[in-house]
Amino acid sequence: MEQVKIIELKESILEDNDKDAQVLRDELKGKGTCLINLMSGPGSGKTTTLLKLKDQFAGRISWGVMEADIDSDVDAIRLKEAGVPSIQLHTGGMCHLDADMTRQGLRSFDRDDLDLIFLENIGNLVCPAEFDTGAAINMTILSVPEGDDKPVKYPLMYEVADIMVVNKIDTLPVFDFDRERMERAVYERNPDMKIFYISALTGEGVPELADYLVERVKECNQ
Amino acid sequence: MEQVKIIELKESILEDNDKDAQVLRDELKGKGTCLINLMSGPGSGKTTTLLKLKDQFAGRISWGVMEADIDSDVDAIRLKEAGVPSIQLHTGGMCHLDADMTRQGLRSFDRDDLDLIFLENIGNLVCPAEFDTGAAINMTILSVPEGDDKPVKYPLMYEVADIMVVNKIDTLPVFDFDRERMERAVYERNPDMKIFYISALTGEGVPELADYLVERVKECNQ
Repeated sequence: MEQVKIIELKESILEDNDKDAQVLRDELKGKGTCLINLMSGPGSGKTTTLLKLKDQFAGRISWGVMEADIDSDVDAIRLKEAGVPSIQLHTGGMCHLDADMTRQGLRSFDRDDLDLIFLENIGNLVCPAEFDTGAAINMTILSVPEGDDKPVKYPLMYEVADIMVVNKIDTLPVFDFDRERMERAVYERNPDMKIFYISALTGEGVPELADYLVERVKECNQ
Repeated sequence: MEQVKIIELKESILEDNDKDAQVLRDELKGKGTCLINLMSGPGSGKTTTLLKLKDQFAGRISWGVMEADIDSDVDAIRLKEAGVPSIQLHTGGMCHLDADMTRQGLRSFDRDDLDLIFLENIGNLVCPAEFDTGAAINMTILSVPEGDDKPVKYPLMYEVADIMVVNKIDTLPVFDFDRERMERAVYERNPDMKIFYISALTGEGVPELADYLVERVKECNQ
């Protein structure tokens, strides 16, 4: 099995995370690296979606992934085995990353040459939404089996996200998922949300998502 | 639509949650009420499982539900409409409940006559596992679509739980879920875990789970 670099993050001592996040965002802009904070509940398919984007990104943008987890390195290994530059960040039990922790990860990753870095946040719909990581773009994934009521139950996640991916649409025939009800709840909280429907398993909808992300990354690094 | 009682919980001021949790556990024992702390990620089917247990519990034990959520009261309404005594607890953004918050909920619920109260915790695999709520039993649900790797990624949840329910087994043909790999990871962390496989949609496995819970509740209240 491949070895991945594992970074044990230290808890931040900075008091003003919002200010620190803005500083980090400006630094990254200066370096021409677009950081996307990828959030979702556990098992919605964050890593699988990234793996599926790989072929679509090939030859268009250079990219890598910082995988954050409480424990384990299974996701970073999956990405590394697929040839995607990645490191594993361990939060030591904490259920989110803030800007200082993200900076610790970026320093260890040490890849100033990439157009795009995904921060795959802890699988959690609550805490990650509360902390600005310094990312230019917040992206959230909801998978069909989780249910269409998540925007009602975890409103902050859908307020802070810029892009929403609805994953596992191949399972729509199996689950009672009301797309209109979900969209209504999302747009009520966030009229500017950009929503994509994909299956990271079959690849449906992934090219459209990739095209949009490539454009956003270019804008982000201008 | 039915109206449910909504309680806005206050953040605890007590310093020693573990001690407070033990006091609450003893109080509940004295009252003959078994408290089960039900935890899982978002959308694994906590409320649907409870609704499916209803017919199985009928005539055997009296029970109710305290629904904890960041926001909304959709779950408590579903339970109340089904005739299950329930109240809605709002955590004001916090991603877990501790013993003091649980006590606030129990006081507002004010049902000393029930054999069993479920505390349906916030949908989250991280924070809820870190706080003893004073419950006699910790129960966790993992749904098949979330993936078999959750015990590896969120180990504490599977260390603190006494009972694990694997839900949505009707979707096993659709997802790549390795039951043996999952069980290995669980038993490694918790050799005493009691695991049940159910479909809260079709009802498969629910009678066995209900029988076990009825016995545990009786033991709990002896």
